[in-house]
Amino acid sequence: MARPRQLKLGAFLMAPGHHVAAWRHPGAQADLGADFRGYAAIARQAEAAKLDLLFVDDVLAVKDTRPATGKRSARSAFFEPLTLMAGLAAVTERIGLTATVSTTFHEPYNLARKFASLDLISAGRAAWNLVTSNTEAEAQNFSDLPHLRHADRYQRAEEFIDVVIGLWNSFDDDAFAHDRTSGVYYDPAKLHVLAHRGRHFAVRGPLNVRRSPQGHPVIVQAGSSEPGKELAARTAEIVFTAQQTLADAQAFYNDLKSRVARHGRAPDELLVMPGIFPVVGRSRQEAQDKFEALQALIDPAVGIQLLSDMIGGFDLSAYPPDGPVPDLPETNGGKSRQHLLFELARRDGLTIIELARRIAGARGHWQVVGTAQDIADQIEERFTKGGADGFNIMPPTLPAGLTDFIDLVLPELRRRGLFRIDYEGATLRENLGLPRPTRRGTDQAQAAE
Amino acid sequence: MARPRQLKLGAFLMAPGHHVAAWRHPGAQADLGADFRGYAAIARQAEAAKLDLLFVDDVLAVKDTRPATGKRSARSAFFEPLTLMAGLAAVTERIGLTATVSTTFHEPYNLARKFASLDLISAGRAAWNLVTSNTEAEAQNFSDLPHLRHADRYQRAEEFIDVVIGLWNSFDDDAFAHDRTSGVYYDPAKLHVLAHRGRHFAVRGPLNVRRSPQGHPVIVQAGSSEPGKELAARTAEIVFTAQQTLADAQAFYNDLKSRVARHGRAPDELLVMPGIFPVVGRSRQEAQDKFEALQALIDPAVGIQLLSDMIGGFDLSAYPPDGPVPDLPETNGGKSRQHLLFELARRDGLTIIELARRIAGARGHWQVVGTAQDIADQIEERFTKGGADGFNIMPPTLPAGLTDFIDLVLPELRRRGLFRIDYEGATLRENLGLPRPTRRGTDQAQAAE
Repeated sequence: MARPRQLKLGAFLMAPGHHVAAWRHPGAQADLGADFRGYAAIARQAEAAKLDLLFVDDVLAVKDTRPATGKRSARSAFFEPLTLMAGLAAVTERIGLTATVSTTFHEPYNLARKFASLDLISAGRAAWNLVTSNTEAEAQNFSDLPHLRHADRYQRAEEFIDVVIGLWNSFDDDAFAHDRTSGVYYDPAKLHVLAHRGRHFAVRGPLNVRRSPQGHPVIVQAGSSEPGKELAARTAEIVFTAQQTLADAQAFYNDLKSRVARHGRAPDELLVMPGIFPVVGRSRQEAQDKFEALQALIDPAVGIQLLSDMIGGFDLSAYPPDGPVPDLPETNGGKSRQHLLFELARRDGLTIIELARRIAGARGHWQVVGTAQDIADQIEERFTKGGADGFNIMPPTLPAGLTDFIDLVLPELRRRGLFRIDYEGATLRENLGLPRPTRRGTDQAQAAE
Repeated sequence: MARPRQLKLGAFLMAPGHHVAAWRHPGAQADLGADFRGYAAIARQAEAAKLDLLFVDDVLAVKDTRPATGKRSARSAFFEPLTLMAGLAAVTERIGLTATVSTTFHEPYNLARKFASLDLISAGRAAWNLVTSNTEAEAQNFSDLPHLRHADRYQRAEEFIDVVIGLWNSFDDDAFAHDRTSGVYYDPAKLHVLAHRGRHFAVRGPLNVRRSPQGHPVIVQAGSSEPGKELAARTAEIVFTAQQTLADAQAFYNDLKSRVARHGRAPDELLVMPGIFPVVGRSRQEAQDKFEALQALIDPAVGIQLLSDMIGGFDLSAYPPDGPVPDLPETNGGKSRQHLLFELARRDGLTIIELARRIAGARGHWQVVGTAQDIADQIEERFTKGGADGFNIMPPTLPAGLTDFIDLVLPELRRRGLFRIDYEGATLRENLGLPRPTRRGTDQAQAAE
């Protein structure tokens, strides 16, 4: 009997919550970004709730080092994603572990190796969220050159991911026999030298890590620009995206799935999982009160700084906060979020401070304030009407905001048959219903030097 | 009352044992290099025994991809050290976690960040073993350029470590107040921008990870060449070294400690911990039988390949195995081990295969075969006669070889008062008796852009 289609749900763990003022709220653990035990407790809670995966984003810098605003940000210091997920792998059994790592500031061999190692440590639960990094603050931690331009970052990423996948296919699944009698540890016919030479990289390989029970890590992307969508359609297995309305979500979903097909892949080899920022109450009034309590904690300068970051680093603090959002030049940052925010301001006629307050929680993602039933209704609509394969939950505060979703919304989703009672499989791919990758890319014959 | 001076002991976890044929022996878990649960069990065992630290080495390649010999090596695939140690951090409480990472194939910001994150995850138990990487096989995984020359690698390492330490000092220990009322998350006067511009690196900083309970990770090095010793004397807190005889150990110890003093540091700010390859039996005959059982499993081609690797990649398989070790040109690999092995061959008049078999277990480190009393005698002599501050235990097989040391040798060392009954502190520095670092390096004023 075919299993009815069910939602995939991730927990996006931005410490100590997605709302910009979360850390000032009693529902958040203010120092969660430096407390591994706190993360471990949340990971176990999410696993007990049978969520598909944990997700952390990344920035390779203290983004704002200005005394006036930087000091007010809880996102100044936090765990590095791969070490965090490796630690969480050791204290969980079933939940997926998604780490964000930039192709712009790493080497493919190191990245392939660390993710392969995480995938083995977790027995097949790793996922890599590929980003190309948006900010000059990050570039300045790696050289005195200006940040790579958007198009160049994506060109590098296209080649980077091919190298990484090639390296992940170094050993066949059954390469290791460990035959003590003959003294043969692995079958050399099942080891493949990549010998990659491209425009950006020369990587001989092979990788010195075996394939994991799920073959290799799940590939995640979040870019919604033209080159971002093309890269995702060719290579990604999950796309996290930000869509405000059902119509936008459907348009994005259909666009991406047809691009996937044009790359010769089956549409269900890529899952579209938009972000959702849920503020849950036992009544609508309680939900609204929760939201307003968070909004009341926003420092205006911090809100405008967040907005400035999100439109690619253009400094809005020089403009009157109660004036309109100015026409801004295109920057070298993330294209898709800039576009999304300008659209939002135009559509609703928002001033700078109004736009800042509007995005202070969900940062351009879909924001839903209401009862469990309200939120389940909204989720069900987007899911059944072709807007999403699942969602990446962005709790307003951590841990309280995630607890609200698990305790109030999940039972309602389960009552409707929309979410699992227990994990279907042992690996992340099995739970997501994604195919186990066979070896891909150009196989070179074993080098016989 | 001053505590009597006691040994520091590390467990060098080379899976599945240090002997080149370990994986063929029933005392070794052949697939330990891909089994995180196996590592976790060993880590807990070492912690229950109150060892100071775990240590893993690293190679950024499948070193030998030739079908004939590579297939016989258990060191073809293994965990990446930082992800492994982050996983082990989550399942241990007190033991130190030492990961080897190369300065030649990483960026200082990424390395500083991952180790700072490991140090926070483990609540102050991380250590970084700085290496510069020896082999062309590694260089070929990062570019099509030839490997950096030995002197250039050490020049890069000298600047690299200053950048890393500078980044580790970005936030003062007490920078984070999380004052919910005022909305101030950290004190901007306690955030320091590095603004490094040197010959190899331009790194603005600050690092986006807080300092850990031990300040920053312990710095470990193993190079015994002239530039290696100078770098260690200036910056290292532990030196792992290979010394065959008491006289050599004393000479190295005195040389390094006086170099430390010349760099303006107290001699006990650096601990000298040579490797020891112990084969323990309940009788001398049992120990010798254990050793011979391992030696009997050596494949001659694998032994000669290991020896070739250890002298810097010069291929000895072209020479008659029963002939003398030829005069070889200096290579670009690790200088100190080449020197050590040629000395050993000359001293004992060994043929190629004899030298290969001699180093097949300890790889040039100190090898002791005997009863617990014999081994404790030897350890005590080196420790009390100024040859070492402790030792890095290199079990012939894992897990059995470590169990032997813990069950047989440790009780004897404790009976003599040479090793701790329980941990002295919570952090690795506290257990090692190393000072907690104050902020070092050039402090820049907070940038006010």
